[in-house]
Formats: sequence, C-alpha cells, structure tokens
Amino acid sequence: MTKLKIAVLGASGYTGADLIRLALLHPQMEIVALSGERKAGQAVDAVWPHFKAYPLPDLVTAESIDFSQVDAVFGCLPHATSQQIIRQIFEGPNPPKVIDLSADFRLRDPATYEQWYGNPHAALELQGEAVYGLTEHAREQLRSARLVACPGCYPTAALLALIPLLQNRLITPRNITINALSGVSGAGRSLKEANLFAEVAEAMHPYGLGHHRHMPEIEQELGKAAGEPLYISFTPHLVPINRGELETITVELTDGQSADSLREALAQRYADEPFVHVLPKGVAPATRMVRGSNHCVINVFPDRIPGRAIVVSAIDNLVKGSSGQAIQNFNVMFGLPETMGLEQAPLFP
Amino acid sequence: MTKLKIAVLGASGYTGADLIRLALLHPQMEIVALSGERKAGQAVDAVWPHFKAYPLPDLVTAESIDFSQVDAVFGCLPHATSQQIIRQIFEGPNPPKVIDLSADFRLRDPATYEQWYGNPHAALELQGEAVYGLTEHAREQLRSARLVACPGCYPTAALLALIPLLQNRLITPRNITINALSGVSGAGRSLKEANLFAEVAEAMHPYGLGHHRHMPEIEQELGKAAGEPLYISFTPHLVPINRGELETITVELTDGQSADSLREALAQRYADEPFVHVLPKGVAPATRMVRGSNHCVINVFPDRIPGRAIVVSAIDNLVKGSSGQAIQNFNVMFGLPETMGLEQAPLFP
Amino acid sequence: MTKLKIAVLGASGYTGADLIRLALLHPQMEIVALSGERKAGQAVDAVWPHFKAYPLPDLVTAESIDFSQVDAVFGCLPHATSQQIIRQIFEGPNPPKVIDLSADFRLRDPATYEQWYGNPHAALELQGEAVYGLTEHAREQLRSARLVACPGCYPTAALLALIPLLQNRLITPRNITINALSGVSGAGRSLKEANLFAEVAEAMHPYGLGHHRHMPEIEQELGKAAGEPLYISFTPHLVPINRGELETITVELTDGQSADSLREALAQRYADEPFVHVLPKGVAPATRMVRGSNHCVINVFPDRIPGRAIVVSAIDNLVKGSSGQAIQNFNVMFGLPETMGLEQAPLFP
Amino acid sequence: MTKLKIAVLGASGYTGADLIRLALLHPQMEIVALSGERKAGQAVDAVWPHFKAYPLPDLVTAESIDFSQVDAVFGCLPHATSQQIIRQIFEGPNPPKVIDLSADFRLRDPATYEQWYGNPHAALELQGEAVYGLTEHAREQLRSARLVACPGCYPTAALLALIPLLQNRLITPRNITINALSGVSGAGRSLKEANLFAEVAEAMHPYGLGHHRHMPEIEQELGKAAGEPLYISFTPHLVPINRGELETITVELTDGQSADSLREALAQRYADEPFVHVLPKGVAPATRMVRGSNHCVINVFPDRIPGRAIVVSAIDNLVKGSSGQAIQNFNVMFGLPETMGLEQAPLFP
Repeated sequence: MTKLKIAVLGASGYTGADLIRLALLHPQMEIVALSGERKAGQAVDAVWPHFKAYPLPDLVTAESIDFSQVDAVFGCLPHATSQQIIRQIFEGPNPPKVIDLSADFRLRDPATYEQWYGNPHAALELQGEAVYGLTEHAREQLRSARLVACPGCYPTAALLALIPLLQNRLITPRNITINALSGVSGAGRSLKEANLFAEVAEAMHPYGLGHHRHMPEIEQELGKAAGEPLYISFTPHLVPINRGELETITVELTDGQSADSLREALAQRYADEPFVHVLPKGVAPATRMVRGSNHCVINVFPDRIPGRAIVVSAIDNLVKGSSGQAIQNFNVMFGLPETMGLEQAPLFP
Repeated sequence: MTKLKIAVLGASGYTGADLIRLALLHPQMEIVALSGERKAGQAVDAVWPHFKAYPLPDLVTAESIDFSQVDAVFGCLPHATSQQIIRQIFEGPNPPKVIDLSADFRLRDPATYEQWYGNPHAALELQGEAVYGLTEHAREQLRSARLVACPGCYPTAALLALIPLLQNRLITPRNITINALSGVSGAGRSLKEANLFAEVAEAMHPYGLGHHRHMPEIEQELGKAAGEPLYISFTPHLVPINRGELETITVELTDGQSADSLREALAQRYADEPFVHVLPKGVAPATRMVRGSNHCVINVFPDRIPGRAIVVSAIDNLVKGSSGQAIQNFNVMFGLPETMGLEQAPLFP
Repeated sequence: MTKLKIAVLGASGYTGADLIRLALLHPQMEIVALSGERKAGQAVDAVWPHFKAYPLPDLVTAESIDFSQVDAVFGCLPHATSQQIIRQIFEGPNPPKVIDLSADFRLRDPATYEQWYGNPHAALELQGEAVYGLTEHAREQLRSARLVACPGCYPTAALLALIPLLQNRLITPRNITINALSGVSGAGRSLKEANLFAEVAEAMHPYGLGHHRHMPEIEQELGKAAGEPLYISFTPHLVPINRGELETITVELTDGQSADSLREALAQRYADEPFVHVLPKGVAPATRMVRGSNHCVINVFPDRIPGRAIVVSAIDNLVKGSSGQAIQNFNVMFGLPETMGLEQAPLFP
Repeated sequence: MTKLKIAVLGASGYTGADLIRLALLHPQMEIVALSGERKAGQAVDAVWPHFKAYPLPDLVTAESIDFSQVDAVFGCLPHATSQQIIRQIFEGPNPPKVIDLSADFRLRDPATYEQWYGNPHAALELQGEAVYGLTEHAREQLRSARLVACPGCYPTAALLALIPLLQNRLITPRNITINALSGVSGAGRSLKEANLFAEVAEAMHPYGLGHHRHMPEIEQELGKAAGEPLYISFTPHLVPINRGELETITVELTDGQSADSLREALAQRYADEPFVHVLPKGVAPATRMVRGSNHCVINVFPDRIPGRAIVVSAIDNLVKGSSGQAIQNFNVMFGLPETMGLEQAPLFP
C-alpha cells in the first residue's frame, strides 16, 4: 500500500517537531515536505539535532511546496499566517486535506475571532466550514472534512472532561472554574525573556489572567454542549517542566449528582475510547501518566463545598494537546485505525 | 546586649534547617540546642553539609535539653509529638516561650483536631491558650503569648489574601475556591517513593483532594474573619521546584465591589507591612519574587465570570510559610524589630 | 507469525518499566509474565500508572513463573539476586534465553566480581559463558548466546566511543579520563534520602569517586580492545534530570593522530550502525539528542593540551544504556531486524 | 558612620542583580546608582520584581552617573564595553575605586586578550595596573588597588583548588584536566535559543570545547603559581540548574604525594579562610552546600590511575564566582571585615 504523503508547515517549532516525531513512527505516513520560513534551506538536523538518525527533507518555504502532490497538510504556523496559506492551498489544484493546529479556524464567530486575535479573519468561508477536531466528539464530521481545526491544548483537556457532563446535565453551566498548569513547551521556541531557563526554573506563576485566548474557544464548545452561552473562569499557570498540562476544575452539580455519578458517567462515555481514561476512584491524574503519549486521564473528586465536585484532567500538551490529536484526526479523515502511529506508551520517568 | 538563647526541636527536617539558616543571620539569636531524635549525637554538618562553615551545637535528643536555660524554643516536630514535648516544657521550671511550627496548636476545637489528625489532643489547655501566629493579624496577642502556633504554609498564603476581604465584607463567604501549587520541600525529608526526584521531576499532579489537613485551619480563620462558619474548596498540587507556594483563589464579590476595589483594600491594609506587598494592577505574583525570603506578594484580577474576582498570593513555603514567620513571631514576642534577621532579599535566579 | 513470549523480572524498577514501554511497541514481543517480589499480586497500573491504557499481566513472584513456556527472560533484578534466579532458570526444563541487565554476568574474572560486589559468585559456569552484550561489538556471539550480560549504562557510552580507538591504536591505553554525568533514574526507585527531589534538584555533585562499580567493567572491555590491562579514571556526577548520560573523555593520541582522524575512524566504524551516530565536526553531543531513544551520539574535539583529544558520548541511560540495548540484543539473538521496536525518535523537548 | 556609596553598572543582568541582593544586606553599602543602558528610565522592580520591597534608585545610563560622588563602582558590563567606561571613569575627577566583574582586565597580556576576545584592548595601562582579584590569593595588592579585575566563575573554582598545589609543587603542571559543570545563570539574561527552558531542561551537554574564554585566564594564573607556562584541558558543561558550579579536576602528583597529602595541604592553606572549606576525607563537594552563599568547598580523592588525584571544587557561580567575590574584594579594598554582608548561609533546599 502506498503511504500518504504529508507536508508539515511550521516544522521549526516545538509542535512541528513533535508532529515529525510521531509521523516518523506512523506506518502510513511519508513526510514529503517541511516548511520553516526563517530556516528554509537548512537540513532538519541543523534545526532539530534529535532527528539526525532519520532521513527527512530539508526545510523549505511554504510557497515552494507543490500541494497538489500532497495528501495531507499539517499546519503548525502562527495564527493569521495560517489562514492565508491555507486559503491559498484550497485555491490551488487538487488540494490536500488540511489539519490545522493554529487557532485560526477554531472559533465559529468572526467577530469573536477578531476581538480575541486582533485581526479580521481572511478566510471566512473556510472558518465556517472547518470541523473543530476534538476527535472523540467529532468523528462523524471528521470523516468527510477537508479542513480540521485542532483544539488548543488547554481546551482539549477541559472539553474532554466537561462536555459529557454538560451534555447530560450533570453539572450546571455556571461557575465552571478551570485552573490549568502547563509545561513551558506550550510557549513555543520564540525568544522571550520570560521563557529563559533561569526565569522559569525553580519558579511558577499564573499568566493571561482573565484574558487568555483559549477562553472563547472553551466557552464556544462548552456552550454548545450546554445548549446555552456561558462564561468560564480560566487561569493558566507556567510550571517548570517541558511537557504536560493539568487542569483542576470545580463544577456545580445538578440535583442528585455526586462526584461518583460524574465519574461513572465519564467512564461510560469513554469506555471504548483508546486515548481517554477515567481513573479509579481516588487516584489523582498526573502528567507523568501521559508524558509523550496521546492519552488523557480524568477523574472526579468530591469538593468540600456542598453541591460541587472537582474534575481533574491531564494530557501531554504537545501530543493529545496538539500533534498527537492532529494525527488522530488524520487517521479518522483517511479511514485508518485511529490509534495508528500513536500506540507508544508514556515515557516515565 | 546578651543574645536570646534558642533551641530548635526537629532540626533534621527542612523546616528546622531553614530556621537555622535564618537564625544564623539574626543578630539577637544564639542557637544553644538542636534536637533530632534519630540523628542525635551527630554533628550538624553530617546532617546538613551546607552549614559546615557555621559553628553549631551537635544534635541531641529533645529530652536532654535543659529548657530552663533557654529563652525560646522553636518546635519543628511532627504533630502529636509536638504537643507532648511542649506540654513537658511548660511543666518544667522557668519555661521558655515556645513557637511551634507543627499543626498541634493551630485548631481551636479539640474535636476538629481529633477528626483531622486522628489522635485526641494531649494538651488541651495549651491548645486553648495558643495564639495563632499569622503575624500581620495577631500582633497584639503575640506580644504576651508564651505559646504560638505558626500557621501552615498553605493557610498563610490564603489568609493574608482573604482575611481583609472577608473582614470588610468585600467578598462573600461562599464558594471560595483555592487552587494551590507547592514546591516539594513542603513534603519534608521523609523517605517516600512519591518524593523521589524521578517521580516528581518533569511532572505535576494534585493531591489530598477534598481532605487536606490545612482545610479546617483555613476554614477556622476565614470563618473568624467572616463572622460565620464557612466551607472552602482547596486543592493543592505538587510542582517540581524546591521552594515556593502559589495560590490562585476565585471569590464572589459583594455588591459594588470589583477586582480594583479589592486590590485597593488589600493595598491599604498592608501599606505599612514590611513583608506583605500588593503588586501594581496587572502584575501576576510569581514565586520567583519571594524565593528564600519572608515576603508575600498578592494581587487581584477580574474574573471572566461576572461578580467574581481572582486573588493570587505567593510565598516561600519554608520562610513566610514556616520558619521565617516563626522568627517574625519571635521578634514580636521579644519586643525586637519585626524584620530583624529577615531582611535578606529574594534569591533570583 | 506467533509472537515471542517474554518475561520481565524486576518489573517494579525503572529499568523494568522502560523495558515494558519498549516491549509494548515491539511487534514480535508478547509480555506473558512480570515479576516484582515486594509488589507481587498488584496490577501493573498500581505500580506504574502510566501503563493504565495497556493490557499487562499482574505482577507475580519470579518463582511462580513457568519459564519453560517463555522464549526470553529479561532480568532487571539487583546483582546477587540475579545470578541465583538465572541459575535456577537454566536448571529447569526447556529454559528460555536470558538477557540480564544486572551486573552479575558482566565481569569475566570471579575474583574481580567478588572484590567489587562483595559476594562470591554463585553461578560461575554461567559467568564464564555469558556474552557481554554491547551489541555493536558482539553480534556474532549474540546470535548463538543463551545468556547475555547487558553492559552497564556508563560502560555503554564509554565503550562505544573508545573501543574502536583502542583497537586501531589511535589512542594510548594510558590516562583515559572519563567524566560522566547521569540523570537520577540511574539510581533506581529505591528509597534513599540522596534521591529525594529536594536533595537533587537545583544541585549537582560527583559520587563514587575512585570506587564506582562500573570501573572494572570498563577496564575489562577496554583492556580487551587495547590488548593489555589498563586503569581508567572515572568520575560520575549526579545531575537533576530524569534521563540521560553524557561522558566527556580525555585521551592521549598515538603518533600522527588528531581529533579529526579519531572522528573519521569512528564515523567509518559506525557508518552502517542504526543507533550510533558520529556528529559533524564541531557539534557537541547532548542528551536531548537521544532522550527516550536507543541512539548514541559521539564526537571528538581537539584538546588544548597537545597530543590529546576529547571524546564525548551521549545516551539515554534507560534505553541504550539499559532496556533498549537489551531489546537490541534480543533482536539479534532471535534473528529479528535489529531496530525492531526501537524505531521511536527521541522525545524533545 | 557614613555608608560607602556604590554604583552598579549593568544592573539589568543576573550578575548585577545578585550584586544588588548582596549589597542590600551589606551594612556599609549604599546603592546610589544603577545603570542599564537598554532599560534606563525603568524602575528596578520593573526589571527585577523580586526587589519590589526594597528602595532602590531607578535605572539610568552609565553616562548620566556622577562618578565623583561615588566611592566604588561595580562593573557588570560585557567585555569591551567595560574597558571603555572604566577608562572614562578614571579620566574623570575624583574617581571611585572600580571592581570590575567583566573579563576586560583579567588577562595580563594584551595579545592574549585580543586573540581570545577579538578586539584590541582600549585601556592598556589600566590592564597592566589591575589587580586580579582572587581574594584569598591577592589580599595585599587589593588593599591599595583602585582597579580590581574579579576572576571568572570557572577560574575561581579552579584556582582556589589548584594554586596551593602548584605553588607547593604537590602536583605537576602537566595534564591538568578540568571538567566543569555550570548552572544556566552563568549564560546571562540575553535572548538565545540555547538558553530557553525547553532547550535546557531535562538535558545536558558540553560547550566551548577546546576554546572557552576562561582557558587563558586559568592558564595565566596557574602558570604564575607553577612558575612556568602551562596548558590546561578545560571542558564546561551546561546543566539544568540556576546556580552552581562544580569542577572535577584530575592532576598528576609529584613524588611522594597522595590525595591525603593534597587535602592536608589545602586544609592548612585555607584553615583560617572564612569562605574556603576543605571537606573531611571522603565527602564529595556538592553545589547544594554553597547555593546562594560566598562559600567554596573543596576535597581531594585518590584516582584509580596511579600517580594521580582528583580534586573537586564547588561554588555558587553568581556569588563566590562573581558578585560575592566582588564584595569580598570591596571589603578588603575599603578596610572592612572581609565577611561583611556575606554572612548568609547557603539556601538548601
């Protein structure tokens, strides 16, 4: 069987690198093009020495890629740039399917996009067409999609935990309070003082308080699940690890519900899912349970405040929160087994 | 002027070590005795090589100390053990003042103590007499106290931020939700698999969900401030750093209040405090601002959920959360300048 | 094709866990038994929560395993224990092949073993028979071996770099000075104060100065390559990372040699090796180039002292330094492609 | 008594920050000016939030400082820039004493300077006049110096360990091999991809192999001690910690010497030194013994190669390796007790 030809745009960032790592192990993927605007012309192992042992094409500009010869494009570009290149791809002949990891096609409402990202959207029809690719909740649409917007890392961990609870009215849409912790790879490879080792190590702090761009995305999808608009509280924190994302979420129970009933509902919902695991009662999710893998672990605990519960969810931000979920979507879009290329167990210690 | 003679009980734990570190710099303290039951007979630098350059007495058993020759005792022992030794100290001749860093004298209600700590209290009169030593809110009682119960590390960060808000009815006593992050030194030097480097590094997870022992302590003091009993939600997380504690707290505003009015109220309340600092609008507290020091930094942010705000508080768990506050209390108890021995600036990077 | 049935002895240590991780991805391996004496009876995910998503047999005692039904045994037990169990395995009916990761069968000379490990060897014939499994230098013997002693982690990094240089007389056997840095997973999961997070983090120190047990092993194999006995200088250091081993080795050049000629010789020797990579001139080996993978990266640099060079070698101590090399040996022993199950690219960041 | 007025040039780097931290605790120092070219006009706590609680002057340009009103200047500027500003300072009226932490005045030979730093020296007379400020070996000259060149961090750890051994002919000047490990703060606060958290964490690698700029400095001072020119082998490694420097040095013994005799000689030489400590036989120096302090710990071990020994030395690169030693020099230059302001014990954990 012929492998599917893929191109990775933005291969010089951490997300691009993790996509390459996973694609190298995928038996049906052939990497035919890698773009990196500022590093075009360089060999991959000049940018990513850890790929030295693997044959990979040199980095090129996105413009130089013949997309008509490609089956699928993974977009790991910054927002705003993404929408322009992806529009051009679809305007070309014989366009490939596009799995976009940027924020550009996640938000349904153009005004919301513009408000949070600061630029008017340049590909409105595509924005309307894109499938929001939280795999476990979007399989049917994914099968026929030509453009998939992969969820942000924070939204992935939150939505997997909360959507079933809202859909089944086990929790109210009020006062959902998400405290999130993230490793530093989520901030990307760009040169900012705040990301220097000596600033981050042996330290921690919240950021984006009250105005992080993943907020409207979470609200959009939770609102859909709840059947009504809602506001969430969301506070991310930077923690000195490379990979990992953990969300501790307090929720209000509807009548008759409890931490146990929520856990049971999630366990049933995800019983057949290969990547989402509800832990036994009392076991706290930890990022070390998922490091380097596409897994998500979830659990629910009683809150000391009556009528509430605490939901905890952990993923690897670069895998299930980004490149792994993108490949999971690719598998669905191309009719492959969903776990293909994603079978690796977590790396611990 | 003659220095005050101090003894440190439990000098082989991290809290004891940080107390020694600070005492060495205190111009009015002379360390005359250090106890460590299992390490009695050893030189301090066998247990703590970083003190090699400093002349310190060898470790002894607590029983072998002549407390009548000591001005102040710092208790860094585990709970249950603390109350027994401290009772004996006060039964002896010419007893010193005692600053206890354990949990034994923090809770007012014997039944609550027994429920959360599993043993009946063995020194009930002392429990009733002890002053809860959150320095900024207990100065008057501290001046005449002979027994001070230093707050736990998590309570310290939470109470400094919340007490003024509750006392002034700027927030409601409902739905106070505390998400806390702590460095690993808070878990002590005991041998547990969960505290091994390879388990903790490059990882993070919540623990004690719904049943951490600092809960009743926070509730007791917040209830006092609110004038009514209350329940809090409190979820601590283990983060791979040595020192530092950060709490991100969502609160419900009372009518007419806002993040700005809360910040302003805290700024006024702590304007003259040497160790509590309300940051300028928009600046997120970070543990790197306080590492190794007795400072606490606080700020308030608007929450996206209307009618709520986010309060953030950061301390060094071993200093303001433990040994530093103990010395601050010592200074008040002995009529010394409150900052004596605590002037060191944070260590960054 | 039927998979090969494997048993992992000592599955509750980090080495055992990494062997399971790799075996799960190996298309020709079926894990049929896992032993862990103190944790016998427990489910694997109670000991290793990161394997929750994978079906694995519960832990049992080694004695309870029917080794006649197993094709290969991986021994991840402590030294001394290993030799006893492995002798019993070979005394049983239809014994499997054994790949031992302990130190018990590495040393050829019983007296040397007893001197460094403190106990007389209990399986002398097996000690004589075992193949020292540095794969790239032992393939022929491995094909017919029934007992393989996998090299220690430090020896692996040193020997891959130095054997070709000594065999070809490019360096002298004198004054080989190995400075080694290791992550903490190498110390295992046992409860020692020295391995606690708060002791190790934000710190580093040498250990085993002048008497580390990997010394005689390195000397044995280097002596074989040099054709004469030799002494090495070897100083390992503990560094606060989970995985990774880096060795910086100064060597004396023989006449006419240079850093360039050494690099060229190594590049030629390893040109066709899938896991050993000589880097381009000037590129320093780094553990991030190999994390989580079976790769080794090597380079050579001029020393400022005339007549010497600096050889640098990096591996992941748990993979090429332990479980990965064990599986590589397994592949050779069973006639499988040598890279099977080991194709995963390094995990970075 | 009036305090001495000091200015810190380059106060926006990590070295400058640590100098401020220490100066704040120094009873005879008053910080009257802080320069930071690119951050001139900013408040200190905008650049260094951890100094929020301390009254400090805003950052200004170096040009705007009236040096005639200053008693001492600490130069924390990059090389080349340093020499120009310091020349101007000495050309002005009533010049202060200058303690320079850059590399500009460390090398005696202008040609060596130009070769290693790439620019001709712009203040040759000052270069000739400057005292090389390894305090323990330069006290007499320091007392009357007006310009002191503080040693680099790597040289400090190496020279303290080796100078007495060479001076007393206990080791030969041949084959001195220094393997050094350093925390990341030594790389400064400049924006380089190599210093990003995600690049450095959970990783380690050597750098500057064969051409690090601290080499000629170490050779100059060791050559002086040996009475003859010499070459050293020096390989620094980057380790994921903030602070700390550890050097493991193999040396050749002269006739009749041993590890024990070397340790004894060092112990005698440093017996009265407040900051240099020779550890008991068998105790390995560790950076956690000195973190945040001005101490240096040293020990000597037998090497397995006959006729050699291993010398290990540990410091905090920002304190004894930089700002602490600068203040120690300041104390000597102004006739103050040498430990003034440097009494703080190490911070552990």
